Amino acid sequence: MADVKFDVLGIGNAIVDVLARTEDDFLAAQKMAKGSMSLIDEPRAKAIYDAMGPATEISGGSAANTIAGVASFGGRAAFVGKVKDDELGKTFTHDIRAAGVSFNTSPAKDGPSTARCYVLVTPDGERTMNTYLGAAQNLTPQDVNEDEVAAAAITYLEGYLWDPAQAKEAFRKAAKIAHGAGRQVALTLSDAFCVGRYRAEFLDLIKTKTIDLVFANESELKSLYETSDFDTALAALKNDATLAVVTRSEKGAVVAAGDRTESVRAFPIERVVDATGAGDLFAAGFLYGFAKGFPHAASAKLGAMAAAEVISHIGARPERKLSELARENGLKV
Amino acid sequence: MADVKFDVLGIGNAIVDVLARTEDDFLAAQKMAKGSMSLIDEPRAKAIYDAMGPATEISGGSAANTIAGVASFGGRAAFVGKVKDDELGKTFTHDIRAAGVSFNTSPAKDGPSTARCYVLVTPDGERTMNTYLGAAQNLTPQDVNEDEVAAAAITYLEGYLWDPAQAKEAFRKAAKIAHGAGRQVALTLSDAFCVGRYRAEFLDLIKTKTIDLVFANESELKSLYETSDFDTALAALKNDATLAVVTRSEKGAVVAAGDRTESVRAFPIERVVDATGAGDLFAAGFLYGFAKGFPHAASAKLGAMAAAEVISHIGARPERKLSELARENGLKV
Repeated sequence: MADVKFDVLGIGNAIVDVLARTEDDFLAAQKMAKGSMSLIDEPRAKAIYDAMGPATEISGGSAANTIAGVASFGGRAAFVGKVKDDELGKTFTHDIRAAGVSFNTSPAKDGPSTARCYVLVTPDGERTMNTYLGAAQNLTPQDVNEDEVAAAAITYLEGYLWDPAQAKEAFRKAAKIAHGAGRQVALTLSDAFCVGRYRAEFLDLIKTKTIDLVFANESELKSLYETSDFDTALAALKNDATLAVVTRSEKGAVVAAGDRTESVRAFPIERVVDATGAGDLFAAGFLYGFAKGFPHAASAKLGAMAAAEVISHIGARPERKLSELARENGLKV
Repeated sequence: MADVKFDVLGIGNAIVDVLARTEDDFLAAQKMAKGSMSLIDEPRAKAIYDAMGPATEISGGSAANTIAGVASFGGRAAFVGKVKDDELGKTFTHDIRAAGVSFNTSPAKDGPSTARCYVLVTPDGERTMNTYLGAAQNLTPQDVNEDEVAAAAITYLEGYLWDPAQAKEAFRKAAKIAHGAGRQVALTLSDAFCVGRYRAEFLDLIKTKTIDLVFANESELKSLYETSDFDTALAALKNDATLAVVTRSEKGAVVAAGDRTESVRAFPIERVVDATGAGDLFAAGFLYGFAKGFPHAASAKLGAMAAAEVISHIGARPERKLSELARENGLKV
């Protein structure tokens, strides 16, 4: 087996977030389901942007946020995702590389512009997302480099990759390479509506063990098993998945490994400023610990800490160096 | 005299801020004078961007921030400044219009790209700025609309306009129109290094009463009169200026109107997150009150409150609606 060069390699939609504070009335007027992620086309993107307030541009993308978090913990991290060679694409590229992540996917020269996610943050800190996939739709299997994936201890994939048609094939190719090299494959279910769109396929990925480790939040888990009862859904997931991490917001998280279930508490926080990135950063902490061979509970604690950091400010990537923050909190990194 | 259509019209450099947190070491390595604004060319802009950490893009520009603040207080506000017709230019345009500001300067079709300011925020909240003026250099007297300026109770100009060669003429044209229409003209000295570059001209503007109201902070004031003694400098300014507002960070501010001097306290704040925009937003509050005919001390209190709001978060424009914040604090708006 070749040497491990990366602790975690993430594949996902390369997106720049356009964040604005808003009131609940705006969501109602725009017919947006609070807390969800909707896919939008270019005219709708323009209409939302015209209607929304002054904004902040900050690099995002679910798996990209996770990978930036892994790097912030001191992990060796790589990202694969498609931008266009435009200003926003350069912004995304700068930000992920400046976070210490290896990022070498070639940008698209033409076609749609770099993906944007219009994130509306309500006074309660909840975020409602509208994504224009743009160039991210053009991620193809050719963008997945065999040597890079084979050199990563964990390949991490976002469920959102099921939305751009060709990205799914890139995902399957990466999973095959990873397992062929004796590595682990992880998946986040991304969003309850996303699970609604691809339930059967996600269940198949889990049951066929194409996925070794699955991340879900409560609503994604319930959507996956089409039940409103958490315990029923968790029992089903324990039966289907090798290893599963279920985040429960202020109720903490549950790690299920076969018959064993461990719970960790949420990390204390003064106020939720912007919930964007909570799940992404929980995954970052857990994946970092998992790659280092830490016990599940210790890894989950790193996840809870990283999630708390990211929801205490605007933007979905850590502002503090997570390795330092962990040390300050007496957690092993 | 025509009807007043705007409380304040601002003319300034139209800039998008690219903000990143950094350590003092980075400033030293890059030979940057902490707390200052330096003008940079395109290669230097690229070098700084390549070296700096993950960033956030958010509309800025000194007078533009002030004007966004006036609008947030409920004032009728307009802005004149030059962007290019590129992605950042569209971002600037969206953000200032979404803040409720009238902005109609035609964007440049070619030439340098929209201006960017690389803002490095150190752990103490202090900001060090590096500005690539780009398209802002091409603001000309033709961009100043006579009817618009004549319809503004106050025309507000930033000292930074002395940096782009032709903008100075735009400034002089606007001041002439304003006075011809019986309106007021205000100037901020912008930055101690900027005062160093244009001391004689700024003094001339004040002494010849081309300016009715001047804003300065302590270091700008000391630079203007080339003294390290605050009281000496203030006495000189009182002699030269019709009306002057001097901000003193945590020591509050002084309003000098002829022989009368009034002091107001700084607004209490938990922690300075990012000092960017403190002076700009103080000016916003004062200008709003001044346009409404409030007593100087009441106007300065609005300024102190707006400054406190903007330094409690990242970015140089208010996140809260300042009219609401004023009401919550028992201040008249």
